Amino acid sequence: MKVKAYASHGEKEDLKQIEIDRRDVGENDVEIDIHYCGVCHSDIHHVQGDWGDAPRPAVPGHEIVGLVTKVGSGVKNHKEGDKVGVGCFVDSCRTCNPCENDQEQFCSDGTQTYGSKDKKIEGNHTFGGYSEKIVVDENYVLKVPEKLDFKKVAPLLCAGITTFSPLNHWNVKKGDKVGVVGLGGLGHMGVKLANAMGAKVTMITTSPGKAEDAKALGATDVLISKDEDAMKKAAESFDFILNTIPVGHDMNPYVKLLKIDKTMCLVGAIEDLDPLNGANIILRRKSIAGSLIGGIKETQKMLDFCAENNVHPDIEMINIQDINKAFERVKGNDVKYRFVIDMKSLKEA
Amino acid sequence: MKVKAYASHGEKEDLKQIEIDRRDVGENDVEIDIHYCGVCHSDIHHVQGDWGDAPRPAVPGHEIVGLVTKVGSGVKNHKEGDKVGVGCFVDSCRTCNPCENDQEQFCSDGTQTYGSKDKKIEGNHTFGGYSEKIVVDENYVLKVPEKLDFKKVAPLLCAGITTFSPLNHWNVKKGDKVGVVGLGGLGHMGVKLANAMGAKVTMITTSPGKAEDAKALGATDVLISKDEDAMKKAAESFDFILNTIPVGHDMNPYVKLLKIDKTMCLVGAIEDLDPLNGANIILRRKSIAGSLIGGIKETQKMLDFCAENNVHPDIEMINIQDINKAFERVKGNDVKYRFVIDMKSLKEA
Repeated sequence: MKVKAYASHGEKEDLKQIEIDRRDVGENDVEIDIHYCGVCHSDIHHVQGDWGDAPRPAVPGHEIVGLVTKVGSGVKNHKEGDKVGVGCFVDSCRTCNPCENDQEQFCSDGTQTYGSKDKKIEGNHTFGGYSEKIVVDENYVLKVPEKLDFKKVAPLLCAGITTFSPLNHWNVKKGDKVGVVGLGGLGHMGVKLANAMGAKVTMITTSPGKAEDAKALGATDVLISKDEDAMKKAAESFDFILNTIPVGHDMNPYVKLLKIDKTMCLVGAIEDLDPLNGANIILRRKSIAGSLIGGIKETQKMLDFCAENNVHPDIEMINIQDINKAFERVKGNDVKYRFVIDMKSLKEA
Repeated sequence: MKVKAYASHGEKEDLKQIEIDRRDVGENDVEIDIHYCGVCHSDIHHVQGDWGDAPRPAVPGHEIVGLVTKVGSGVKNHKEGDKVGVGCFVDSCRTCNPCENDQEQFCSDGTQTYGSKDKKIEGNHTFGGYSEKIVVDENYVLKVPEKLDFKKVAPLLCAGITTFSPLNHWNVKKGDKVGVVGLGGLGHMGVKLANAMGAKVTMITTSPGKAEDAKALGATDVLISKDEDAMKKAAESFDFILNTIPVGHDMNPYVKLLKIDKTMCLVGAIEDLDPLNGANIILRRKSIAGSLIGGIKETQKMLDFCAENNVHPDIEMINIQDINKAFERVKGNDVKYRFVIDMKSLKEA
């Protein structure tokens, strides 16, 4: 099936409209008419080749929501007309230890939503959500609860689960003092989710200008990380810190904020960090951990949690024709807090 | 009470024999005739002023065993003639959260065995175990089980608990694959203890020459960290890694050895570590933690565990007159694996 998509043909080239081939709906597949697709910073890293060569044409997009338009004969959990979502991966081996434990995100033989070898079509690579339609195995398709505002759901499929999973895994609960470092696409979801879990949330940021925004999102306090006195006063007071800084940085000042025995979890900085001083973790039995998106079951749990607690990302809706400008703005951290592409703009193009 | 001790009078001076004042036995105190005292690398750092100015005269020693010679009227748990031990601290506030949770090692107002302000004697600082006798509040005195070889017990009070505590805290159990990085005083106890807990222990070392020694201590495998092929083959295979390297180093190769969701715990490197690449923890939800000695209750548990499982450190017994030579050998990592001072040599001097 031929569908319209936006794709990059080279590291330094703008995305432009092309036509791509989607596979036919197989026995266990769901065909989805994409209504909205979020714009994640990973999309930019991918097309720029920051994480290695990307197969071209590169069609990014792994925050996908839409309506089911067709299902294969073996599909059990989805039917035509359902509101559904697709996140960062569309298949996995299903037999390894992580797959058997609902942690498909760690499967070493998984298929990412875009730029992965597509095992279902020999020789092809996967195309993401910057397109009209997508065909996905039903086991990797999420149900979007009715209570959620459909226009805003897309960013939950990556930014949402990336922040929900560590808060969930490290058992953040009512009354916990949680710090969220960095106020971008991930950070703003971290604040909203931790707040919905009953935690008292402190936004930890370099920018005093972000204080009001953070409070509007649900933070009860703002800690300016450049304010040494304030950082000293806040030492050893946090039960959990979610660190969303997307680049290498000095972790030491944040580690000092943790209580004894507590954990800071990184979700953004997949590059070299500044030297950690071992004393900061040894003398108080602290931990530094990392976390990667989440499994299918946990992602469904997150969507249901958001529906129940009325948690939505703050988004700015764009037409796909504006995607290259949007990329520039994401790089300049100039979006509150996530772009979502209205895919009608592609269908009508 | 005047007792003989070995003390340092300056950062660059050898230790020599002096006389010090010990406080009289108070209501809750236990007077201990010191039989043996272990030599810990921390003793050297302390007298050299590596961790800040040390009050002089500096009498090191925090791996102390001996016999009770006198008890105060309020003492309930110890009596004359008991075999007892004293570790790295001799008092704490008893009211803070860590103290109330049997984690006195984290008390911010604790009294270290040597070089700390002595709250019981105005204006003085504490003197450690390189001396004939010590007087300690009974709550900070451990019972040495009969089954243990008394000559070898001393190093358990620091090297033993420092390695037992993280193995215990992170629930190392039968069948776990545990890596111990670094074969010194701490590392050799880590191998013995993890082995006694039923784990399959791999010694991870830079030196192929240490393979035989490691196996004699209880390691089933040896992994040479400079052998890139072997390190690749061992990737993602460990349930827990105890990292005893006492200086800054590159943690990345070791983190890669952990299974998904597992932890490497540092107990030695209280200084700057080389840059960690965030991807190594984020992409597989791994953790890097630290651990510091252990609380009194856990230290007693460790001593009882060692008695039950016949775990003793490998020691080299010395006379106190040889302490300065011993320090040089510790600095050159030339001891298998812990010096213990026979305090008879001081008493008879």
